[in-house]
Amino acid sequence: MDGAGERGRFITLEGGEGAGKSTQARRLAAALAAAGLPVLRTREPGGAPGAEAIRALLLGGVTAWDPTAEAMLHFAARREHVLRTLRPALAAGMWVVCDRFADSTLAYQGYGQGLPRAAFDALAALTLEGLVPDLTLILDLPPELGMARVAGRGEAATRYERLGPAFHARIRAGFRAIAAAEPERCVLVDAARPAEAVTAELLALVRARLGAPLP
Amino acid sequence: MDGAGERGRFITLEGGEGAGKSTQARRLAAALAAAGLPVLRTREPGGAPGAEAIRALLLGGVTAWDPTAEAMLHFAARREHVLRTLRPALAAGMWVVCDRFADSTLAYQGYGQGLPRAAFDALAALTLEGLVPDLTLILDLPPELGMARVAGRGEAATRYERLGPAFHARIRAGFRAIAAAEPERCVLVDAARPAEAVTAELLALVRARLGAPLP
Repeated sequence: MDGAGERGRFITLEGGEGAGKSTQARRLAAALAAAGLPVLRTREPGGAPGAEAIRALLLGGVTAWDPTAEAMLHFAARREHVLRTLRPALAAGMWVVCDRFADSTLAYQGYGQGLPRAAFDALAALTLEGLVPDLTLILDLPPELGMARVAGRGEAATRYERLGPAFHARIRAGFRAIAAAEPERCVLVDAARPAEAVTAELLALVRARLGAPLP
Repeated sequence: MDGAGERGRFITLEGGEGAGKSTQARRLAAALAAAGLPVLRTREPGGAPGAEAIRALLLGGVTAWDPTAEAMLHFAARREHVLRTLRPALAAGMWVVCDRFADSTLAYQGYGQGLPRAAFDALAALTLEGLVPDLTLILDLPPELGMARVAGRGEAATRYERLGPAFHARIRAGFRAIAAAEPERCVLVDAARPAEAVTAELLALVRARLGAPLP
């Protein structure tokens, strides 16, 4: 956000498959709501009607998209999400907890599938017009552990989950590089620990970094 | 295309609603095939599996897309079309006749809906990597005549067709501006005449500009 005027806080959760993003997003949103804050929990791709339609296309797994095409689909969905959901919620003073955002496109299509950084930057500039998370919590764990968790869920594997270990290693390295490059925005969190320990660290970070009145 | 090596010819047909693009593309492709040339007739959005899935999303009419999001969807589809269909066909020496291409995005999202030119140029550069039509035939007619033709088809109106006369006037002005800016690539054809007269002019143009051995 441009920082002008009254506004909420924009928190994103990032990480590879099986890192626990959805669980932690739910818990964080619940804790913020319990503290009396107005909270919106949302996710990408999705979070707006057009964006959810694009999500269905992306997660359908029918097509092996070219990385540039896939990045454009993600940013088209993100554009709808930003305009219809995120900016209005932030302008209304809400605390937004978002499961994946632009860093996922950089990690998956950029580091994972070879989309050039300049292409990512161009699409991000067109889409975001300066919207940057206030805090990005990157859940980090060895890919083999994440994939074992995914397998333990008993759900059908998504297209990404079916990609090999080298792909998932590149994703992890990408997220770590993002965290290292933007330490004022991003925190790398050890997600190999039990979920309760991860939640406690996330709440402490949101308290310390954003001043949330959490217990 | 980069122009290196043996290759086909890339012909695009452009224009507003009811201009007769599909009919003329069919006739032009048939004439080229009758002359013994290898021909591919295709269309946008679409022309490749992922692109057709995006077409269904765009023409479904459920969502009023933001112009940037909509342009990204068109270019995502175009990227799949270029990589999976257009470049292989051109590399194989085919004569490609394509019903709509990038000029439609510039006319509809740019001139029609206010997408900045710089945004269009950035998306085009990421998507096309230098692929430019050898000849673009722009079917020009007053929007009210085009809309009357569309109404006469008895089909349900598409999302664009339901937009008002001011929108369609901007589309026409956009296509005319494109034709004026790139006269070496584009030809404006009066599409208010009977279809047979338009076909005769198109065949003459393809013969004169690209050396097609048409009767």
